[in-house]
Amino acid sequence: MIDNPFYSHEFHGDYELISIGKLDLEEGGSIPDCHLAVATFGTLNDAKDNAIFVSTWYSGTHQIWRDVYIGPDHALNPEKYFIVVIDQIGSGLSTSPHNADGPNASIAMSKFPKVRIGDDVVAQERLLREHFGIETLQLVTGGSMGAQQTYEWAVRFPDKVLRAAPIAGTAQNTPHDFLYTKALIEAITSDPGWNGGEYTSNADVVDGLTRHAGIWAVMGFSTEFWKQEVWRALEFESKEAFLAGFLEPYFTAMDPNDLLAMAWKWQRGDVARHTGGDLAAALDRITAKTFVLPINEDMFFPVRDHVAEQELIKGSELRVIDDVLGHLGLFGVAPTYIGQVDQHLKDLLDTKV
Amino acid sequence: MIDNPFYSHEFHGDYELISIGKLDLEEGGSIPDCHLAVATFGTLNDAKDNAIFVSTWYSGTHQIWRDVYIGPDHALNPEKYFIVVIDQIGSGLSTSPHNADGPNASIAMSKFPKVRIGDDVVAQERLLREHFGIETLQLVTGGSMGAQQTYEWAVRFPDKVLRAAPIAGTAQNTPHDFLYTKALIEAITSDPGWNGGEYTSNADVVDGLTRHAGIWAVMGFSTEFWKQEVWRALEFESKEAFLAGFLEPYFTAMDPNDLLAMAWKWQRGDVARHTGGDLAAALDRITAKTFVLPINEDMFFPVRDHVAEQELIKGSELRVIDDVLGHLGLFGVAPTYIGQVDQHLKDLLDTKV
Repeated sequence: MIDNPFYSHEFHGDYELISIGKLDLEEGGSIPDCHLAVATFGTLNDAKDNAIFVSTWYSGTHQIWRDVYIGPDHALNPEKYFIVVIDQIGSGLSTSPHNADGPNASIAMSKFPKVRIGDDVVAQERLLREHFGIETLQLVTGGSMGAQQTYEWAVRFPDKVLRAAPIAGTAQNTPHDFLYTKALIEAITSDPGWNGGEYTSNADVVDGLTRHAGIWAVMGFSTEFWKQEVWRALEFESKEAFLAGFLEPYFTAMDPNDLLAMAWKWQRGDVARHTGGDLAAALDRITAKTFVLPINEDMFFPVRDHVAEQELIKGSELRVIDDVLGHLGLFGVAPTYIGQVDQHLKDLLDTKV
Repeated sequence: MIDNPFYSHEFHGDYELISIGKLDLEEGGSIPDCHLAVATFGTLNDAKDNAIFVSTWYSGTHQIWRDVYIGPDHALNPEKYFIVVIDQIGSGLSTSPHNADGPNASIAMSKFPKVRIGDDVVAQERLLREHFGIETLQLVTGGSMGAQQTYEWAVRFPDKVLRAAPIAGTAQNTPHDFLYTKALIEAITSDPGWNGGEYTSNADVVDGLTRHAGIWAVMGFSTEFWKQEVWRALEFESKEAFLAGFLEPYFTAMDPNDLLAMAWKWQRGDVARHTGGDLAAALDRITAKTFVLPINEDMFFPVRDHVAEQELIKGSELRVIDDVLGHLGLFGVAPTYIGQVDQHLKDLLDTKV
């Protein structure tokens, strides 16, 4: 258990910690008392059929969804829908290596078990059903690792997911993505301060976390983002100032083991685990109306990787988002970004299923 | 001075070490006795007007040019041309941090001065003129950092360069490339065994060199290289075996300080240093007939960065090489690669100037 002030209501606003009890894991072992951080927007109707579920990406939480994607002016409209965002296991808000204590003390820090995308989705489904009584979802969406979770939902629980909108992420993680994530992992674990996962503060690992931010700079944004100096729109005066003032503090505030737990999970996202490795068969299970939303400048979830999967999903549509930021366009920094997402999600929600 | 058997005739075949004497450097300081490793192919004619000059890329030497690009069946035909390949300063064969001794002992290892692309080209021009009596070049070519040097030649010595063919590299390094190289540098310097540049063997830095290879895996090859498992053509059974059997030993054999010297140079390649930062003015100095040869799947020297520069060069042509390997297509592994390069270089050499 590490005290890290970043994972708090001060930085993440309103959310509720809800226990779903013991969670047995695909890789073996369990989380004795799995807590999920849950943020809701809007009101669940009496029929309990107006729910939308959102899952989170690597390093992200419900906060960015609240600030950028959800609101009365957005497709994710809390005046119409009951929107539930659940922070993934390892996010630092839900049960994670750095915050495991009490009944979870046995899995703290380096002892945290391997958690898969499938474990997340099982936990999320249980929470939605047992805590809210939700059995069907009008829409499941998420970006990056949230897209991996969206696909996992649509394949694992096809009867519960009416519509799906994976953004900038794939159903089966690619080998290139695996290697990219490996480089991120090694940037952290190579820091002697990481100490096999038994540091006493994330500050012990600041060098590794800073290098990790540096690799994100190379792959998270597009080559054109840097060439066009798009960071000037964020009122930085140089790329070095942008790194030192934005990307580095973003990651150095976080917990190394939590990032590593998510990275391991990201590397192994794969819906074909349900069908003996047959990706086409897995995606053919999907009955949700699906819009696949890549970002055209994404360096590591490129459009063509989305197309290859979208073509295997019955009745699906490819909707490409134009954003020079690349993958981290997900942050919604470009003024033209969220309007595109809203239009696609609105079209999807307006589609009768 | 480090004894590293990789930098030897055993691994690099025939080459001659030629001293050009003291080389004063753009960043200040000097190399007291600058040696350049030179490999030649063919015979210089009496008029001394059949010479082609080739410069080398980061981590590469004349070896790959000899093995892949030069021969009677190639555009770089030693039966017709006198082809000179000079290994760049810091390459490990020419004067470099790890091999500085004798009169260069004062600049060994961590004391090695900063060397720029311009210093290389000044050194190369001096050697060609003083040692071989060459005053004009039918063609200057090179890949990656060799492309940076090709542009530097064409801008600095326009009267000497009749034709230029930069392959997979730019005249002005991009900010994205700078950040990519920064990540490579940090992978090495973060290894405690690097010890500020004062290690006793490259083996002390094997962890950092291995991480450095891992980042090359992400950017050096394309996403499709990994997805299509192109490494199977090289008779590896898994991507892990390819890393462990090819990319990691390739880099761990090398000297860390030598790689760092080249990386620093790569980051700062910029012909606009000749024209007060005005790239268009610098490229407008070029009188060589120029073919710009990007590789279509290059992750860090993307085609559009080449196009932006090619459009500023009078009478130039864009010739895009199709290769799923991406940047490291330069190794000539794909059977379809060298035929494309040969055709473009042949067309260029056949162009009257």
